[in-house]
Amino acid sequence: MRTEDLIDVALGNMSADLVVKGGKLVNVHTAEIYPADVAIKGDRIAFVGRADHAIGKETVVIDAKRKYLTPGLIEAHQHVAGSHLSMGEFAKSVLPHGTTAIATDFYEIGAVAGIAGIKFCLDRLRETPLKVVFVIPMPALYQNEPFGHTGTLNIEHMKQMLEWPECYGLNEAFAPRVLEKDPEMLELIQMTKEKGKVVVGHASEIRGKNLQAWLGYVGSTNDHECVSAEEAVEKARLGIRILLREGSAASDLVRVIKAVTEYKADPRCFAFCTDEQDPLQLVRIGHSDYKIRLAISAGVNPITAIQMGSLNAAECYKIDSVLGSIAPGKIADILLVDSLREFKVDTVLASGKVVARGGKFIAKLKALEYPESMYGTVNLQRNVEPKDFEIKARKDTEEVKVRVIGATDGDLITEERVATLKVRSGVIQPGLDQDVLKIAVLERHKASGEIGKGFIQGFGIKEGAIGSTFNPHNEDLVVLGTNDADMSLAANKCAEMGGGFIAVKGGRVLAQLELPLFGLLSDDPLEKVAEKLAKVYRAIKEMGCEFGGPFTTLGFMCLPVIIGRLKICCEGVVDVWKGKLVDVIIG
Amino acid sequence: MRTEDLIDVALGNMSADLVVKGGKLVNVHTAEIYPADVAIKGDRIAFVGRADHAIGKETVVIDAKRKYLTPGLIEAHQHVAGSHLSMGEFAKSVLPHGTTAIATDFYEIGAVAGIAGIKFCLDRLRETPLKVVFVIPMPALYQNEPFGHTGTLNIEHMKQMLEWPECYGLNEAFAPRVLEKDPEMLELIQMTKEKGKVVVGHASEIRGKNLQAWLGYVGSTNDHECVSAEEAVEKARLGIRILLREGSAASDLVRVIKAVTEYKADPRCFAFCTDEQDPLQLVRIGHSDYKIRLAISAGVNPITAIQMGSLNAAECYKIDSVLGSIAPGKIADILLVDSLREFKVDTVLASGKVVARGGKFIAKLKALEYPESMYGTVNLQRNVEPKDFEIKARKDTEEVKVRVIGATDGDLITEERVATLKVRSGVIQPGLDQDVLKIAVLERHKASGEIGKGFIQGFGIKEGAIGSTFNPHNEDLVVLGTNDADMSLAANKCAEMGGGFIAVKGGRVLAQLELPLFGLLSDDPLEKVAEKLAKVYRAIKEMGCEFGGPFTTLGFMCLPVIIGRLKICCEGVVDVWKGKLVDVIIG
Repeated sequence: MRTEDLIDVALGNMSADLVVKGGKLVNVHTAEIYPADVAIKGDRIAFVGRADHAIGKETVVIDAKRKYLTPGLIEAHQHVAGSHLSMGEFAKSVLPHGTTAIATDFYEIGAVAGIAGIKFCLDRLRETPLKVVFVIPMPALYQNEPFGHTGTLNIEHMKQMLEWPECYGLNEAFAPRVLEKDPEMLELIQMTKEKGKVVVGHASEIRGKNLQAWLGYVGSTNDHECVSAEEAVEKARLGIRILLREGSAASDLVRVIKAVTEYKADPRCFAFCTDEQDPLQLVRIGHSDYKIRLAISAGVNPITAIQMGSLNAAECYKIDSVLGSIAPGKIADILLVDSLREFKVDTVLASGKVVARGGKFIAKLKALEYPESMYGTVNLQRNVEPKDFEIKARKDTEEVKVRVIGATDGDLITEERVATLKVRSGVIQPGLDQDVLKIAVLERHKASGEIGKGFIQGFGIKEGAIGSTFNPHNEDLVVLGTNDADMSLAANKCAEMGGGFIAVKGGRVLAQLELPLFGLLSDDPLEKVAEKLAKVYRAIKEMGCEFGGPFTTLGFMCLPVIIGRLKICCEGVVDVWKGKLVDVIIG
Repeated sequence: MRTEDLIDVALGNMSADLVVKGGKLVNVHTAEIYPADVAIKGDRIAFVGRADHAIGKETVVIDAKRKYLTPGLIEAHQHVAGSHLSMGEFAKSVLPHGTTAIATDFYEIGAVAGIAGIKFCLDRLRETPLKVVFVIPMPALYQNEPFGHTGTLNIEHMKQMLEWPECYGLNEAFAPRVLEKDPEMLELIQMTKEKGKVVVGHASEIRGKNLQAWLGYVGSTNDHECVSAEEAVEKARLGIRILLREGSAASDLVRVIKAVTEYKADPRCFAFCTDEQDPLQLVRIGHSDYKIRLAISAGVNPITAIQMGSLNAAECYKIDSVLGSIAPGKIADILLVDSLREFKVDTVLASGKVVARGGKFIAKLKALEYPESMYGTVNLQRNVEPKDFEIKARKDTEEVKVRVIGATDGDLITEERVATLKVRSGVIQPGLDQDVLKIAVLERHKASGEIGKGFIQGFGIKEGAIGSTFNPHNEDLVVLGTNDADMSLAANKCAEMGGGFIAVKGGRVLAQLELPLFGLLSDDPLEKVAEKLAKVYRAIKEMGCEFGGPFTTLGFMCLPVIIGRLKICCEGVVDVWKGKLVDVIIG
């Protein structure tokens, strides 16, 4: 299709390829709803309104049957590896939920497989009908801080990616890094601004003077870390675009959207995002469609909610010249929806093609093989043994006071807690009566043999151990459990399957989800991945853990920078705010 | 100032250069008003809120005395030569009215002096505290169409200017040119889109299929040519940003803003513009401040009106990362205003410096000399004589039917009318009883001697002639009058003074305004220019013409493309829609 063809189709001198007839247009520009057809040529919208003049012999006509026509929805911030789906499968899974574009950074893949892994996944995702707003993965630059680096990504890689034409900006300009004037962060932000690209913010727990100091440097930005309406109002007042987050790692939307419904902030600077979402939640509640439903049920006008999910997000990434609304010249990403209030997506058009109907993906995708190098990435120095997980007291005593990572369901932030634990034969015992379990992180990239060990409270596991190679930092192998034998079994079995999630109890594997690609992604379809993960979750629940997304929360325990107070990495337990290792034992 | 300093000032580790204390912030992001100070470092805002911690020994503190703090206003589309002021004088004149940024193209200057003239003026205007959003002057590319070209600007010049870092896009992508697929227009639009720059629209009288055909090609755009609320709603629904126009050539704001107040279109895609404004209107009613007042008096909420004048306009030009609101990191363009409803600007800060107080410009500007080549640009082949203006009948007859350009006060659009005129000695006489006067356009760039002649109705002049070298196309010398003797005197005198405006009667010059720079601009201050122009206007009024801006309307009579039905250029009378010369005599 030549752009000139849009002129001819609108004028009636050329037939449209496809006309959606008899819909009710949700106009996100003027905030109105009225009857309209949409004529499409190639991947673009050519005409909106009564479009009979654009229908020729070859034109495919879809009867909208008075369904609502809304723009395709834009996911404004999600780390895709959290879905544990391969790229094609991810696109297949979110498109039926009305998500036609996504802003993402592939930082987990970068941490494991560097720039080549990122480019491979970006290209694969771009081959699907999903639009990809790629932003460079700052988190991967800090992947093994504060104590080292897997070496997969450095500042030169970041600069290189920033030059890519398919790169729209820099992801997660961490406020603390800016406040401490980290030279690499400042340089990349300057470069991003000079290129007119977008600086995506990250201001978790940053308020007041710190917030403004950060903003002064990054300039125009957005933030997906608001956890209260008051915080959102403070940030929105400064012109920070607010990405209302709803995912399996954090569920903030209903609380934070009161900035609009109660504090009456102008909704134009609000959009939606997922951040992290496991495949089970994706199956259970959906994706962008769920956020629209949730916002409406929280009291937002349906048109406003749809504006947030489309035009506002497009403006946030400066892509509103081609996406975010239904108008001539825009890419034809369009949803047909029965009822605005229930917002169940009936039909999804992406780039002018019907790709999903009735919740099912119906388009063809190119079959794809991942290269051998992207498998077999979990490398331990040797099989571990139970005694590798022992934490020894410094002197012969019956009890010791220890620092404990305080974890909460659905929260990325941790507390620093203190517990008194029994010592047997010089080895500190987990305090199962007070829900204090052991946690260990095993380096898995260079087979260095490093293991960081500590204690954690909140998971509620009564028996056994769980293991995972997915965590939002260095993607090491983390295990958590009530006893060293199950922890070592979990670690060895997880490594054996090339990475994934596992639950073991009494020397037996209860359930597992293999993630052989980078130790992060499955090559199975969503349903199978979700089914296996559900089985692992059920096992974990039976072990006593009530967390909604136990592996997401577990993963964030291993992010020893930016968010929370006490975390753990393969070097040991970390005081996040000081950026230093701390002793597990107090005194 | 280093950008890092903003971090230090916000944190209280470094003093601000200036703090505005005790204002009431009009927050255009959240649409709220609340008390706040603003701390400024260099040209940037460092902190908004209670800012005592940013005040050091060297900090200048301005007591806002509870005045409102609003962002500096952005003029979204104005051709600056219409002010007839030199660049420094223009900045001096609009800044006290709260205009701190302007989108402009210098097309008139380009038509006379080419790319060198544009660069010279752009650089001069950029040296002032006014921010300049330069967009390439498409009108100048079409300056002498459909019959030739002054040759000052061609497509290669346009491409060259599009590469300038200080260029933000392409001005006035004329809808008819796009609809006829003019290759130069299409190529420049594609280039602009590829560079991520802004395509400024121009869709005068374009509706329905034509409108969508145009939009499909240009993609995301804006339009300043709406003349009714219904037209604005139609365009806004397509995502076209609406620039509500209020100037001396067209006064559309009060009519068109009903799109928001009555039709309830979401106001976020509306901004304000001037298009053309003569210096008298600037003195009399103001500039951006007047549009805010007018919008408020038309029923727009004051905060919404200020959003239109600042943030919305900034988004329109993709400059909202640095302009359009009061927030850390943004350029410190701030107004202090006593009453929102009256919107009288008390103090203007531009780039962190106080530049105007109480309506007076108080900053220092670099003195500037224009090079000799920019003077003396009105070149006739020879002094003209009364008989050069005669329009002869084709045969010996007493009466002829002629085509007449129908002009209306404050309207750029003309009608094609028909009148019956008397013939004496083979020469057609103007029909003063039916207000049919003679109009002539004299080529003035290459001294070719060409004169186009025709009849015009609507000006109401009873005696004498007026002349001008300012018209929005080829900037030729145009005269209009009741008799050939006065017309020839007007032309010769106007050429003699190097261009300008003139009114003559009975062989005597009644009043004149010299515009020696390019034949377009004065080198006098606003007051003097306005005073002289007022004198010319008074003379013209006494001659019987009641038009508010007679020279603006006269100028548009010589724009033989795009707007209106019948126009005139130095080749003769033109049917604009056919793009062809037509005979003055019918039959």
